[in-house]
Amino acid sequence: MNLAYIIFNGITWLDLIGVYEPVSKLKSGKHLPDLEWDICCFTESAADIYGLSVKPSKIKMPLDQYDAIIVPGGSGTRQLQYDSEFLGWIRTAVDCKYKISICTGSLILGAAGFLRDKKATTNFQEYDTLKPYCREVLTDRVVNDENTITAGAVSASIDLGLYLCKLWANSEVSENIRRRIDYHG
Amino acid sequence: MNLAYIIFNGITWLDLIGVYEPVSKLKSGKHLPDLEWDICCFTESAADIYGLSVKPSKIKMPLDQYDAIIVPGGSGTRQLQYDSEFLGWIRTAVDCKYKISICTGSLILGAAGFLRDKKATTNFQEYDTLKPYCREVLTDRVVNDENTITAGAVSASIDLGLYLCKLWANSEVSENIRRRIDYHG
Repeated sequence: MNLAYIIFNGITWLDLIGVYEPVSKLKSGKHLPDLEWDICCFTESAADIYGLSVKPSKIKMPLDQYDAIIVPGGSGTRQLQYDSEFLGWIRTAVDCKYKISICTGSLILGAAGFLRDKKATTNFQEYDTLKPYCREVLTDRVVNDENTITAGAVSASIDLGLYLCKLWANSEVSENIRRRIDYHG
Repeated sequence: MNLAYIIFNGITWLDLIGVYEPVSKLKSGKHLPDLEWDICCFTESAADIYGLSVKPSKIKMPLDQYDAIIVPGGSGTRQLQYDSEFLGWIRTAVDCKYKISICTGSLILGAAGFLRDKKATTNFQEYDTLKPYCREVLTDRVVNDENTITAGAVSASIDLGLYLCKLWANSEVSENIRRRIDYHG
């Protein structure tokens, strides 16, 4: 299992880290020992609106080698959903088994064409923006429509992480990880 | 209000980002317009056990210029609590008004001598480790003993962030930020 975490300027870091932290414990806890991931960026670096910057491990590399792409949200998505170069890069993930987003990351999956005929969710303030990109907007915290998995606003990222732990390992592992991070959402 | 977020090798990024995200909204929402912060590191860079690396804005700079230090946890704290050079740097924060930690970050505050005569908390698996450093270990998610503020395991970082929003702005602002990040912990 090889994951591509997508980062970009104007990201909300909690959208990324909320899912990253529980999923990473699948590796350190040896529940999914072959789990690998990259932090993938289309630009040289990525910072949030406050300037906090995470170092990407891959820059402008095609995404077709991954089993899953995970796209966080943030104010940057509002422009990126119309950025044809960026979307061209995201579309290299067309054959990835899992297409996953958090918060307004679903606007990127949508603009790339990955949500056509899918049920999906997003930040509760952006349901109307998501509508034209998908079949149906749901208000659940995590929506899985045939391995296209979208999560709601910001802290729903942790719920998504625990959901993926259940999907890729099992309920007991997910519950143990939930306890370790003391999450009660 | 000027904050020093402390980062180090072996950090748990959710401990940092959980408090960072709500507190940053005090600035972007203009509730605390003079809020500033640095990402402070004693080494050239800091990564978690999986290699994810955040860029520090200050390296080895004394911490006495800040109103608050915020120390996340992570496996790295187990060694750092005995690292006299690192602790010497942390002790430059002795006169900072607020001394704040998340999860096992309290072991660093404790080893620096900042928890003597204080009630404090930490990761639920490390209550015994914290005992010798403080007056009393509590099991609450957030403990404030005269501006020495400690939080419990990992996701308690978000509770801490919302607590600081209440302390530094007010309950209404904190509640609005909680809604925006859709947190129900």
